[in-house]
Amino acid sequence: MAHSIETIAKALDAKFEGDGTITISAAAEPARASRSDIALAMDPKYAEGLKAGAARAAILWEGAAWTDYDLDAAIFVKRPRLAMAGLSRVFDPGPEIAPGIHPQAIVDPSARIGEGAAIGPFVVIGRGVVIGPNARIASHASIAEESRIGADALIFSGVRICARVVIGDRFICNPNAVIGGDGFSFVTPEKSGVEEIRETIGQRDEIRQQHWTRIHSLGTVEIGNDVEIGANATIDRGTVRATRVGNGTKIDNQCCIGHNVEIGNDTMLCGQVGVAGSTRIGDRVVLAGQVGVSDNIFIGDDVIAGGSTKIYTNAPSGRVLLGNPAVKMETQMEIQKAVRRLPRMSAQFAEIRKIVAELGQKKDTE
Amino acid sequence: MAHSIETIAKALDAKFEGDGTITISAAAEPARASRSDIALAMDPKYAEGLKAGAARAAILWEGAAWTDYDLDAAIFVKRPRLAMAGLSRVFDPGPEIAPGIHPQAIVDPSARIGEGAAIGPFVVIGRGVVIGPNARIASHASIAEESRIGADALIFSGVRICARVVIGDRFICNPNAVIGGDGFSFVTPEKSGVEEIRETIGQRDEIRQQHWTRIHSLGTVEIGNDVEIGANATIDRGTVRATRVGNGTKIDNQCCIGHNVEIGNDTMLCGQVGVAGSTRIGDRVVLAGQVGVSDNIFIGDDVIAGGSTKIYTNAPSGRVLLGNPAVKMETQMEIQKAVRRLPRMSAQFAEIRKIVAELGQKKDTE
Amino acid sequence: MAHSIETIAKALDAKFEGDGTITISAAAEPARASRSDIALAMDPKYAEGLKAGAARAAILWEGAAWTDYDLDAAIFVKRPRLAMAGLSRVFDPGPEIAPGIHPQAIVDPSARIGEGAAIGPFVVIGRGVVIGPNARIASHASIAEESRIGADALIFSGVRICARVVIGDRFICNPNAVIGGDGFSFVTPEKSGVEEIRETIGQRDEIRQQHWTRIHSLGTVEIGNDVEIGANATIDRGTVRATRVGNGTKIDNQCCIGHNVEIGNDTMLCGQVGVAGSTRIGDRVVLAGQVGVSDNIFIGDDVIAGGSTKIYTNAPSGRVLLGNPAVKMETQMEIQKAVRRLPRMSAQFAEIRKIVAELGQKKDTE
Repeated sequence: MAHSIETIAKALDAKFEGDGTITISAAAEPARASRSDIALAMDPKYAEGLKAGAARAAILWEGAAWTDYDLDAAIFVKRPRLAMAGLSRVFDPGPEIAPGIHPQAIVDPSARIGEGAAIGPFVVIGRGVVIGPNARIASHASIAEESRIGADALIFSGVRICARVVIGDRFICNPNAVIGGDGFSFVTPEKSGVEEIRETIGQRDEIRQQHWTRIHSLGTVEIGNDVEIGANATIDRGTVRATRVGNGTKIDNQCCIGHNVEIGNDTMLCGQVGVAGSTRIGDRVVLAGQVGVSDNIFIGDDVIAGGSTKIYTNAPSGRVLLGNPAVKMETQMEIQKAVRRLPRMSAQFAEIRKIVAELGQKKDTE
Repeated sequence: MAHSIETIAKALDAKFEGDGTITISAAAEPARASRSDIALAMDPKYAEGLKAGAARAAILWEGAAWTDYDLDAAIFVKRPRLAMAGLSRVFDPGPEIAPGIHPQAIVDPSARIGEGAAIGPFVVIGRGVVIGPNARIASHASIAEESRIGADALIFSGVRICARVVIGDRFICNPNAVIGGDGFSFVTPEKSGVEEIRETIGQRDEIRQQHWTRIHSLGTVEIGNDVEIGANATIDRGTVRATRVGNGTKIDNQCCIGHNVEIGNDTMLCGQVGVAGSTRIGDRVVLAGQVGVSDNIFIGDDVIAGGSTKIYTNAPSGRVLLGNPAVKMETQMEIQKAVRRLPRMSAQFAEIRKIVAELGQKKDTE
Repeated sequence: MAHSIETIAKALDAKFEGDGTITISAAAEPARASRSDIALAMDPKYAEGLKAGAARAAILWEGAAWTDYDLDAAIFVKRPRLAMAGLSRVFDPGPEIAPGIHPQAIVDPSARIGEGAAIGPFVVIGRGVVIGPNARIASHASIAEESRIGADALIFSGVRICARVVIGDRFICNPNAVIGGDGFSFVTPEKSGVEEIRETIGQRDEIRQQHWTRIHSLGTVEIGNDVEIGANATIDRGTVRATRVGNGTKIDNQCCIGHNVEIGNDTMLCGQVGVAGSTRIGDRVVLAGQVGVSDNIFIGDDVIAGGSTKIYTNAPSGRVLLGNPAVKMETQMEIQKAVRRLPRMSAQFAEIRKIVAELGQKKDTE
């Protein structure tokens, strides 16, 4: 895992100065860096830390006077977060899963596991499963019958991939996520209270006994290439067609994706986002943490929603949303300002009413 | 898994026309259906898809001219979602779990497992557990000491049923759900900041050191018949008495039910709903996705709450709620309309104040 | 598990009256208590239940006339919840995990397990792991390479502790929680829509193609002493430095803690709280259920936030917050009152505008 400064600079497509042969085994914050670390100081605010630490090499902000910091070498980057991506890939050891199939894993004889697999203990792989080359599957994961997963998958401990789920290449799935649980879909023999409310907006004529009859999920989940799923996230299977997640889409911890949902490409759902059944979400959408999206609506391409935004109706492409209920971000900003002033305005309004009433009276008695 | 049209129609309590002997092995969307599928076209909007697909048989909306669609048979249904329930039950293969107890499952000798069980690999069943007939328990599930589960249970992979939990018949539990984790209950030796706030509504006199002392959960969880629990949902055990879930209640993925909570019959909690400790929820209540319910309150029978509603106080039976904080749905609709207009009203109000001030001055100077 | 009244009173630092030699094996609600239970009746409201139940001994409110209730002994407590803490500790049997290492657990030969361990079936412990004395680790848990856990840990089934995580003494972790999943951190080669929005507050010039490049998590998670984590909670690892949780902090079910977050001592996060990346939270903070905290902000010591509060900006020490967006609790109370009256005020305002317009006109035409 040790790399020379020259190799690292090349990997980052960046230039370096000083001794390119120094070898580095890890990256660290400037103040905590040891002699074998490379200090991450992509912003002038790290200058102090750099002096405090022991690193011989650093990644510096553009234009830094690297010789001021007792360094033997420095790499200069333009877009620090992009550099972090390259650098972190170089130094990430990944989870340790011994090559081959662990003797305590249970792989159905009909399953086809690609070359280069590392499958941990207590993994269960079902009938007819197909997994591409170089899969790394950590302990306790289960991949149920007839599922198919592409090349280079990294599946962490306790992940549940249920029956007939189809997943593309370079899939990363964090611990205890569940792909392909049953959809939450029920019907009452008679029209239910919720159906009535939807038709009448809040008015109900009568309340009836109702038992919930289950609609089973015959569909599955289809996931594209380069998708990443967070820990304890859940994606339910579809009722008849599949629930779908496009290429390059990233889904964070504890996101909750309902049955029949379709999510486009390169979309990002942050922690605890919930998307209710049958909703469609476009490409390059970004939903911040705890956003909620109602069922059966459509979120256009490139929509961005701020933290905890609750979206109840269709959102056109490119819209930037905030609030509960979601409105355009700038509108929400104005609303929030006005709401904050509302108690004072309310008091002033009471006064004005009195004054106007007096004015009116004077007028009338003139 | 193949069924004749006649059998399916009978199962759905529906009439059919055409060749009742055709056998069907799966249900599909009309446009994607193959010759061995039954096309699901319960609404005229599917007419186009029906023409595009290859199905020989379809379930159609009432009054459809089935002979227009190159079909050999058609079933007609009145309430499409109810038909879906019946149909999906017929065609759901369910998870594959081999009959019997897998040799790699660990079942305590004192446990009593009913007839017809299918228990997967790496399942752990503890001391004194009692499980009714026809249980299907998928890989990696654990059922801890002295738990009792009724007949016909379907428990998916990675489910945790903790000690002494009692569950009725026909229980369905999706992957990685946790029934009977410890309640979140702590006390400080001195009165805590939160207790003070509750008494004074937001005012605090002083801030003190406080460590949290744990109140252990001696109670358990009791769940009725016909209950379904979603993936990664959690239901905590009670402090002294049990946390309770009534018959026929359905709880979706990632719901979070606190200690001592009591939920009635035929209630439905959608994805990511949170119910804090000791709250009681009645029968036939429906809480949409991301609803939050405070601790120690009471939600009456037949209450319906829209998505992301946050309920802080008791709700009477039959109430339809929306918003944060929850108010009657129609009130919330009016509030939202008024709030959206608030920035404009705020500007107009500033104007009116000026005008009224001028009017007043003129008045005074007359 | 049976204890005498005298022993229990001593453990609770309380006085008792009557026969101190009676032995008790469990605690129960007064009305449901059997002869071998101690009835929990710390409030006069339980007097009725006490008469209905069969308990020979009870814990009573201060000043209760215990001889009125057909009891043979009574313990008197001052702070009932604190007494519950002591009592529940005495009577909690804890999960049953057989002493020693289960033959079906896989413990890497390089791992060091302290004395007195109880490690259940299908547990996996990786290379170089160090676990202190008296660890109790339930079935299906996994503890990955180079993790270190202190003394007296109680780790429930299905918990995932990922590589290099460091945890203090007396750690309690509920089922299926994930400590050390990958952070959710991505970068686009060009400036992304979100970055643009942050700079311009909601205005976007153009929409561009963007793929997400992963920033790997090189950091780990560091957790102090006396920390408790709820079922299905997730704490992500840091990017370079560690994500940190201080001593005595309690984190409830389904909390979602992002990468690089730092949480202080004796802080309490209730169910479904989400804290986005790189945010710092002080000591003795209490965040109620479903609170959301934005990334890269600072929550001072002793902050308290009510249920579902959404915090987007720094909060000074001692602040009591409520609402979305979070404001001081008393301000929020005023806002909510004013908002509830807003539809009526809005109608009144329309009237006033008309009257003022008329007054103005009369004025002009006088």
